[in-house]
Amino acid sequence: MEFQVKSTKKQEIIDITAQIKQILKESQTKKGILIIYTPHATAAIIINENYDPNICDDILEALDNLIPQGKWRHDKIDNNAAAHIKASIIGPSQTIPIKDNKLQLGTWQNCMLADFDGPKNRRVIVNIIQNK
Amino acid sequence: MEFQVKSTKKQEIIDITAQIKQILKESQTKKGILIIYTPHATAAIIINENYDPNICDDILEALDNLIPQGKWRHDKIDNNAAAHIKASIIGPSQTIPIKDNKLQLGTWQNCMLADFDGPKNRRVIVNIIQNK
Amino acid sequence: MEFQVKSTKKQEIIDITAQIKQILKESQTKKGILIIYTPHATAAIIINENYDPNICDDILEALDNLIPQGKWRHDKIDNNAAAHIKASIIGPSQTIPIKDNKLQLGTWQNCMLADFDGPKNRRVIVNIIQNK
Repeated sequence: MEFQVKSTKKQEIIDITAQIKQILKESQTKKGILIIYTPHATAAIIINENYDPNICDDILEALDNLIPQGKWRHDKIDNNAAAHIKASIIGPSQTIPIKDNKLQLGTWQNCMLADFDGPKNRRVIVNIIQNK
Repeated sequence: MEFQVKSTKKQEIIDITAQIKQILKESQTKKGILIIYTPHATAAIIINENYDPNICDDILEALDNLIPQGKWRHDKIDNNAAAHIKASIIGPSQTIPIKDNKLQLGTWQNCMLADFDGPKNRRVIVNIIQNK
Repeated sequence: MEFQVKSTKKQEIIDITAQIKQILKESQTKKGILIIYTPHATAAIIINENYDPNICDDILEALDNLIPQGKWRHDKIDNNAAAHIKASIIGPSQTIPIKDNKLQLGTWQNCMLADFDGPKNRRVIVNIIQNK
C-alpha cells in the first residue's frame, strides 16, 4: 500500500495521519504493527505533535541550526547535503502498534513526512503486520 | 501488552529492560521481533548502555546542548518545545530481534525510556511479532 | 541470519546493502518487512545515499561537530562517550519494506553500518517478517 504527498516548500513537515488511518481501516487488521516508510534519502518520517503547528516549524528550525546548509562536501555535487544528513538522523521509517484496528498513537502524536529538499512528490509505503 | 513508568525529574532516562524481558519470557515467543513504543510526544525509547549510568546523563546533557530550552515558538503555548524536538529526533520506538525467547541485545545495550518533560507517568506498549 | 563487518578506522560508515539483499534473496520472501539490527552501543544502522561517498563523510563530520569527543562523564571510564551519544541518536536498527522479494529502497537509499568507535568487528542481525 502506497500513496504520494507533494511538498510545496524547500522544507516542510506534512501531516499524513489521515491517509495512514484510512489504510489501516481498510485493511481491517485488528492487532499488530504498522510500518511507515519513505523511499527517499532527503525525507524522513516523524511522529510528534501537529495540534500546535508551531512544533513542526520548531523542529525544522532546530535541525537547520544544527545542520547548516551549504558547507558540506556533497554540496559541490548536489546542493542538498544538509537534507541528507537530517534524513539520516531522523530516519526513513516509523513503526506504530495497532489495537482494535486503531493506531496506538498518543493524544499528541501524529504521523508526518518531513521533506528536507522540496518541493517534490514523495512516496510513502505502508506495511501492516498482523499479530495473532 | 503495556506497562507504566514514572519519571521523577524534569529529564530522566529510565531503564525498562527488566519489564521488557519479563513480557518476552511470558509470551514464550522463540523467534521474531519485539517492538517497544511510547505513545507520548515528549518522551522517546533509547537503546544504549546503562551499566555506567553516566552515559544516560551524558545523553541528556548532549541533547540539552543541541536543543536549548525556552527559545521556540511552541514555548509560548506550552513550555516544552525542546522536549518535542528531542522526542522527534530520537523517536518513540525501537525494534529488537528475538532468538531462543531472548532479546538479541548486545552486552552493552539496555532498553530505556527517555522522559524529556517529566515528572510524569509514561506508558510503554510492547508488541511481539513471531517469525516462523 | 547474521553477518559481521570489520571497520578499519575510528569512525566509518560501511555499506552493507549487498549482504542484506543476498539474505533477502535466499529467504525467497515475497512480501513483508526486513529489520536490520546491530547489537552494539557505539554503532548504528543508517539508510541514506552512498552513490556519492562524500555524504557518509559529511554525516560523520556533522555528528562530530554536534557531539565533540572527550568532554563527557563516561570519558573518564571508557574514552568513547561521544560514540555512545551518536549511537543513541541514530539508533541500532532500520526497518525496510519488501515487495516481490526486493527491498523497497529508493534510488538513492543504501543500507549502512555506522561505526563510531572502531576499528572493530561488528555484528549485523537480519530478521525478515513475512506478510500475507
